[in-house]
Amino acid sequence: MIRIGIDYYPEHWERSMWEEDAARMAALGTHVVRIGEFAWSRMEPRDGEFHFDWLDDAIEVLSSHNMKIILGTPTCCPPMWLYQAHPDTLRWERDGKPTDTGIRGHRCLTSPTFRKYAGRIVGEMARRYAGKPEIFAWQLDNELDSNQCTCPACRAAFRSWLKEKYGTLDVLNKAWGNEVWSGEISDWEQIQPLLGRGNCPNWYNPAWLLDYERFCAQSTADFVQFQCDMIRSFDPQAVITTNACFPQHMPDFHREFAPLDVASYDNYPPILLPEDPEEPYSNAFALDFVRGFKRKNFWIMEQLGGPMGCWAPISPAMEPGMLEGYALQAVAHGADLLSFFRWRTSRTGAEMFCHGLLDHNNVPNRRLKELEQLCRRLEKLPGLGDTTVHSQVAMLYSADQEFALKNQEQSKGFAYWTQLRRFHDACMNLGVDLDVIEEHASLEGYKVVIVPTHFITEPEVVARLEDFAGKGGAVVVTCRSGVKDKNGNCILGQELPTLFRNLCGCHVTEYDAIGPAVQNLVVERGGDYKITGWCDLIEPDTAQVLARYQGRFYGGTPAITKNQFGAGTAYYVGTIGERAMYRTLLIEIFRGNDIPHMLLPQGVESSSRVGEDGRYQFFFNNTVHGQNLRLDGQKVHLQPFEMRILTPQGTWA
Amino acid sequence: MIRIGIDYYPEHWERSMWEEDAARMAALGTHVVRIGEFAWSRMEPRDGEFHFDWLDDAIEVLSSHNMKIILGTPTCCPPMWLYQAHPDTLRWERDGKPTDTGIRGHRCLTSPTFRKYAGRIVGEMARRYAGKPEIFAWQLDNELDSNQCTCPACRAAFRSWLKEKYGTLDVLNKAWGNEVWSGEISDWEQIQPLLGRGNCPNWYNPAWLLDYERFCAQSTADFVQFQCDMIRSFDPQAVITTNACFPQHMPDFHREFAPLDVASYDNYPPILLPEDPEEPYSNAFALDFVRGFKRKNFWIMEQLGGPMGCWAPISPAMEPGMLEGYALQAVAHGADLLSFFRWRTSRTGAEMFCHGLLDHNNVPNRRLKELEQLCRRLEKLPGLGDTTVHSQVAMLYSADQEFALKNQEQSKGFAYWTQLRRFHDACMNLGVDLDVIEEHASLEGYKVVIVPTHFITEPEVVARLEDFAGKGGAVVVTCRSGVKDKNGNCILGQELPTLFRNLCGCHVTEYDAIGPAVQNLVVERGGDYKITGWCDLIEPDTAQVLARYQGRFYGGTPAITKNQFGAGTAYYVGTIGERAMYRTLLIEIFRGNDIPHMLLPQGVESSSRVGEDGRYQFFFNNTVHGQNLRLDGQKVHLQPFEMRILTPQGTWA
Amino acid sequence: MIRIGIDYYPEHWERSMWEEDAARMAALGTHVVRIGEFAWSRMEPRDGEFHFDWLDDAIEVLSSHNMKIILGTPTCCPPMWLYQAHPDTLRWERDGKPTDTGIRGHRCLTSPTFRKYAGRIVGEMARRYAGKPEIFAWQLDNELDSNQCTCPACRAAFRSWLKEKYGTLDVLNKAWGNEVWSGEISDWEQIQPLLGRGNCPNWYNPAWLLDYERFCAQSTADFVQFQCDMIRSFDPQAVITTNACFPQHMPDFHREFAPLDVASYDNYPPILLPEDPEEPYSNAFALDFVRGFKRKNFWIMEQLGGPMGCWAPISPAMEPGMLEGYALQAVAHGADLLSFFRWRTSRTGAEMFCHGLLDHNNVPNRRLKELEQLCRRLEKLPGLGDTTVHSQVAMLYSADQEFALKNQEQSKGFAYWTQLRRFHDACMNLGVDLDVIEEHASLEGYKVVIVPTHFITEPEVVARLEDFAGKGGAVVVTCRSGVKDKNGNCILGQELPTLFRNLCGCHVTEYDAIGPAVQNLVVERGGDYKITGWCDLIEPDTAQVLARYQGRFYGGTPAITKNQFGAGTAYYVGTIGERAMYRTLLIEIFRGNDIPHMLLPQGVESSSRVGEDGRYQFFFNNTVHGQNLRLDGQKVHLQPFEMRILTPQGTWA
Repeated sequence: MIRIGIDYYPEHWERSMWEEDAARMAALGTHVVRIGEFAWSRMEPRDGEFHFDWLDDAIEVLSSHNMKIILGTPTCCPPMWLYQAHPDTLRWERDGKPTDTGIRGHRCLTSPTFRKYAGRIVGEMARRYAGKPEIFAWQLDNELDSNQCTCPACRAAFRSWLKEKYGTLDVLNKAWGNEVWSGEISDWEQIQPLLGRGNCPNWYNPAWLLDYERFCAQSTADFVQFQCDMIRSFDPQAVITTNACFPQHMPDFHREFAPLDVASYDNYPPILLPEDPEEPYSNAFALDFVRGFKRKNFWIMEQLGGPMGCWAPISPAMEPGMLEGYALQAVAHGADLLSFFRWRTSRTGAEMFCHGLLDHNNVPNRRLKELEQLCRRLEKLPGLGDTTVHSQVAMLYSADQEFALKNQEQSKGFAYWTQLRRFHDACMNLGVDLDVIEEHASLEGYKVVIVPTHFITEPEVVARLEDFAGKGGAVVVTCRSGVKDKNGNCILGQELPTLFRNLCGCHVTEYDAIGPAVQNLVVERGGDYKITGWCDLIEPDTAQVLARYQGRFYGGTPAITKNQFGAGTAYYVGTIGERAMYRTLLIEIFRGNDIPHMLLPQGVESSSRVGEDGRYQFFFNNTVHGQNLRLDGQKVHLQPFEMRILTPQGTWA
Repeated sequence: MIRIGIDYYPEHWERSMWEEDAARMAALGTHVVRIGEFAWSRMEPRDGEFHFDWLDDAIEVLSSHNMKIILGTPTCCPPMWLYQAHPDTLRWERDGKPTDTGIRGHRCLTSPTFRKYAGRIVGEMARRYAGKPEIFAWQLDNELDSNQCTCPACRAAFRSWLKEKYGTLDVLNKAWGNEVWSGEISDWEQIQPLLGRGNCPNWYNPAWLLDYERFCAQSTADFVQFQCDMIRSFDPQAVITTNACFPQHMPDFHREFAPLDVASYDNYPPILLPEDPEEPYSNAFALDFVRGFKRKNFWIMEQLGGPMGCWAPISPAMEPGMLEGYALQAVAHGADLLSFFRWRTSRTGAEMFCHGLLDHNNVPNRRLKELEQLCRRLEKLPGLGDTTVHSQVAMLYSADQEFALKNQEQSKGFAYWTQLRRFHDACMNLGVDLDVIEEHASLEGYKVVIVPTHFITEPEVVARLEDFAGKGGAVVVTCRSGVKDKNGNCILGQELPTLFRNLCGCHVTEYDAIGPAVQNLVVERGGDYKITGWCDLIEPDTAQVLARYQGRFYGGTPAITKNQFGAGTAYYVGTIGERAMYRTLLIEIFRGNDIPHMLLPQGVESSSRVGEDGRYQFFFNNTVHGQNLRLDGQKVHLQPFEMRILTPQGTWA
Repeated sequence: MIRIGIDYYPEHWERSMWEEDAARMAALGTHVVRIGEFAWSRMEPRDGEFHFDWLDDAIEVLSSHNMKIILGTPTCCPPMWLYQAHPDTLRWERDGKPTDTGIRGHRCLTSPTFRKYAGRIVGEMARRYAGKPEIFAWQLDNELDSNQCTCPACRAAFRSWLKEKYGTLDVLNKAWGNEVWSGEISDWEQIQPLLGRGNCPNWYNPAWLLDYERFCAQSTADFVQFQCDMIRSFDPQAVITTNACFPQHMPDFHREFAPLDVASYDNYPPILLPEDPEEPYSNAFALDFVRGFKRKNFWIMEQLGGPMGCWAPISPAMEPGMLEGYALQAVAHGADLLSFFRWRTSRTGAEMFCHGLLDHNNVPNRRLKELEQLCRRLEKLPGLGDTTVHSQVAMLYSADQEFALKNQEQSKGFAYWTQLRRFHDACMNLGVDLDVIEEHASLEGYKVVIVPTHFITEPEVVARLEDFAGKGGAVVVTCRSGVKDKNGNCILGQELPTLFRNLCGCHVTEYDAIGPAVQNLVVERGGDYKITGWCDLIEPDTAQVLARYQGRFYGGTPAITKNQFGAGTAYYVGTIGERAMYRTLLIEIFRGNDIPHMLLPQGVESSSRVGEDGRYQFFFNNTVHGQNLRLDGQKVHLQPFEMRILTPQGTWA
């Protein structure tokens, strides 16, 4: 069973409205309701004075309509009295000063005082609610980012973390290469968090930056563990998650979700479709990425329910079908529960134009009808909840690559996600499921492993890939892999791709960081493609050449190679191509590795969930245009944002 | 009699030059001279040591040439010794730190210490000069903006203002909707001014922001009242104004000018004409807007006298005719006195390339000749000073709408002034005079009242509009009216335009905040028009449909409606159209309400001043191209920037 | 002999690599190696504890391979312990707060504490190494910019500098025109450095800004003098330089290099060629500019050795021939020594992708081969080192013009270098050598002197130009000359170009600051040209008209004039034209003054070095395309970035 839920803020509405709201939710066919998030000032209006009566009341009203509760801990928004009494709970900005209160999320996750108060309120909630039958699950805090705070507590914690890691300053100075620019640290107190005005962070020591990113992400992960432990101390069986988003300062999701039971995500797909018609699969990527956090089905804690408008002007209206279609897309990629944001649009506060399902007028509308239709449709597919995605293709990701490439743009416009996205897009377009997995995850069960821009390189990861290929798997490695060691320094004295050279059977004699310039490449068996961003000039050792550059002073030089490695193969892609290049390359790889695929129109995706009863196959149109496809000789038409589902029985649902 | 004046800074020039300067001014035909503004350090070079001899001397020299004096109070620029001795007089910036001295206007209008010193210098001036026959009028300070200062005095004053307004924190928390994000205030000291780095102000609570804007504007208005009282304590008959401009932080002009005798404005029309040839009436709007501050004729304290260049690089040279034409445009819209900025271009200081009438070479030039020509021309129209503008059309404006929409852009690119400007442009282009009046002003005497984007909605204003329409008037309401209550929160449980629904006879079922996208609309009787920014999907209650959307999922849905209301009519315009749409709409409205209008070429405006002796009709060409028009069968040609005046006698002047 | 060198950082590499590195350098044919710069933390790891053994060792290893040493003082990068123990050594940013450590160059050159420590380390180095035969020369600090620091020491120093200059506040207030905006200073303590947030510096008093720029530049020059004195106290014969670059805050290079023996420059010509194909001579200008610092041959302390990538993403690969061609271009313009940056790309630190000659793989590559080829080629031209550039054309430059125009953009897009560059480009394109000389330098030996935008005008400079023209020379003066006096205030009561009016025989009746608009001009004898930025409307006194404006209200008005002045001529160019206009104008001037010139393809330059044995003529192709030229009837082809050298013997080398 796929559960549909609603995000509800009882504290925003008169008590007299609750009953009707709950009745309306239930009548639509929803099952769960998320509450509590942000309501600290109502739960503890004064230091140590706890008021849960209103929350008991809300839970009772909602439960009386058979809604299960997902209870949020309110630690994203401490009350004003806490900041006033304890300014050391404030997050400090990059300019080295406390943030100004007045928005939200002003707290430092590392601050011992904040930890004390956060622990107390979570403990009080857990003591009262943990294990109660009304409580379906817990959501910790809200949309946590990496705790890039510069407060004194964070400074001290960063130094402790470094002491723990390196032991002595000599070891640290060596690891960071501090001999450059007289950067040698002679006292731990000289170490600062990431400050810097204007020039920041491009001008900093990349090794230092990498450790700083790791430390901040660890602070966030520690805070998750801390809340998790608190709740489990009252109910070891509690189901706990936190709602991920992709913030400016990315956390290390794999660490963050390790102690949690289920991954969840705030799913806000594009309402105004991107201008680039080649970019339709971005949301599918986000969903596959989130499924990889715990390598199993996940939840959506906030699902797009109306036009956006809080951090930005109001967005355009949602197209007909969008609400339902985007929800089913999340299901197709592995979501088992979707809670819609939010019941009714707030009439106050900064989010008053971040629309919920209902507008301020509180009148039934087009979006509510689509939600009801979604509920009815899912009710007819009760077996779907017992299925999951089974991929034959995996792609490696790690926070280390994210952190290192974010702070050192390799050429103008070069971004870590570009190559991940291009391979993923090609898979979607070919109807092939793909898992995005952490670089240390097991490769068992996959036929193909894609390794884009593996910048920070550990011998152990390379060894496992060699083992995978040696036993018959296919590995795809791309440019800017093997560049750096685990400290974030360049690997000396080996020709690129250094540790991957043996596997790929080639080396790079020179590279051309062409940035936004566009050049050409010819694939030996099939077509010319535009390339941009980067060109590795390859010399094969044992590999064969699949594609060569055209033009410039290195026309004819190999650009893509394929190497026989044991029972398997290793591809090296020395450049960044247009989408069609990845499609051509993947078709060759899928053919060679018996991976079924199909040719879908641009913007249409197909994915599957498989269970004991068989396979549900999903066909989704990510575009504002109608699309036609042929399926086993049958012509299928998809309206804009339409999702069609082929059941194990071979019928459309 | 229309008075022409000169802005003069005797303290910038050797004493030996004054006599010749005054003689030259008088010879040109000017009557008044504005002095004193900014000269605090000369009036009080050391704390409490007053030197007015030089000013007496300057007044005597100028008066001896029959020039009347407008005396400026110098409070915009306190002397350096004041900042040094009393740093608490400094304005604090949004980053919560005192501003750096070195430019001008560094003072906080709220600071008690600044008030003390400002009061003393103004008092000393008033004691010496108030009531003297040489003194024609007083100008307070210079180009006051809203006092958006974050100093401790402002923090305290903001809290007091809120205590006064709300009484208790419970009331304030409710009014601001502080239950969102645990924003509930439990101690007045938790309330801060508008700080915020980067994210400011989009992420703040809009209700809070609205009160903050009101408070800051009130601080400015209080400061005007304070100086006014000081001067009147010496001369109750003193004529007092202050020179308005449109700064980044807009004051509440209607409050600010309430205690003053006459509105005045620093009139710097565009020298480099805007690239958009559809934008020629921007300066006419500014003038009509200023006339509305006190609903009577106004003054220009700084009239464009040469190429600009201070806050920006030097502007291009003024086109021939521009100096005279722009001055007469101000007269046409109600100016009774124009003082040109400035006699001679400064040879020192930041404004050394902000050109006056004379260049540094001090040689008679093209601009001086145009000024002389202007004086001679006005001398031939002595009755003009006894006339004023009589409009049959009014447009509502209020600072509350300004403040609320500034901080909450409704869709990407949506700005409060857009719709005001488009209706105004169409009136100018149709030769129809229009008053811009405060939303609480009397509607007596008007036939049509335009109500663009009436976002913050008071029942009393709506009631007066219903009364106006009921008695036969026409009201035009546009999209995003009726959205919010007086606290700045959204009106709950009513369909848009909420309080205006009864008057307009329609409601909005959904809206599409299309931002910069361009769509189409068809007017039932006449033409297709481009629309952008916003689309209300309208369902008529009793109204008839005038225009419908084309395309998107709501093609055919009503976009503009017309409702019979009592003896009058109410129009609802659910979108923002290109200029021609407003012209078409207004022609229909003017025809239905017997308002005479004519079809002028784009960029030509016609307006009138009426007195006991009859009507002066003005025809002004706002463009760099010659323009032809037909007037009662007669062909009239206007050179670039030419103003032609049809006198009550039916002759051209 | 032209010397080729290598920048080497022994402290970045294992001791075991030094020997092989030195051997490889020597084998390539290089002669000098620059070391020491940035290595303070290795020389003095703790306060007062000096470690030079490793440096002795490095010098010994390098010297044993016949490499001469250029020793850098490490004062750009003090060690972390110094900042920690003495925070008053930190540079303060424009926001009035100490900079954050973590990058480089954090020190204030004015700080007495920093001076003490910098003096001590330089003294220790000088005591140990000065006069040793291994030491070829000294490089002070690194890429010094104007010390625009706001620390307390700089505040005090600025006030002292002003006291020294003006004596009393009355004099200063008058010089700065502080009567404007009550800016009169009544206590020296009121004077601040250039702070200012957002509005800075456009809104400041230009006279104040000019003195501030002069003071900061003087601070840098003083610091150079200070280090220079320290080294000379140990070895009066020491050859000392510092490596210039063109930073955001430009120093006064002529003052800075006055005490030094030789000018040097860090030469990083464009790798990614500018999109504007009309802009190929930018690097030639930089080289001619640097030659003017001391009016003799100069050195390159950092010569482009690989793709860039530190303050920016990695640049594209260098084109074949670029490394060699750019190096020879520097020689052609007067470089006698070129040290390549750097031996091997760093594997750590912020510059890890700022490529040296060798990549991280340490394998011989294309760039190393070009370097070797360069060494071999120069070995065949031993006489080249005894030659220098002899120009017949000079162009005036001064830091005062730079400072004044930087802070007061005359029209939108108007920049000081524009007109310098356009005249210089035309000379390059005509194969004419040009010296860029300080405005007070002797004009002896020149036939033509170009005086672009001589904004700040001293009577003595004008007198020398009149003398030069009177004796038969040609002077070219352009718009915005004669505007200001030495205080930075506008010259009053004289028609532009004021002091230059007599020389040029014309005056400006009005100007039109047209900014980015493009208009036209007709040269009487030859062609229409596009003009932009500025138009002076000229009225000849005695001059003849060479070109007139087209269009606008001043069509037909003179734009360029030529005046007979004594035995010579003076041209006045009242506008800024496209490149072809300068070419046409210079051809006329060169013909009239017997200066040999040729017509080269766009992007090709020709320059000469002359010695006792005759002339070496250089032909360099600045473009990515092959170029053909005819030379004495002979067809010569230049590959992209190819340099061909015609020896005194008439052979190609």
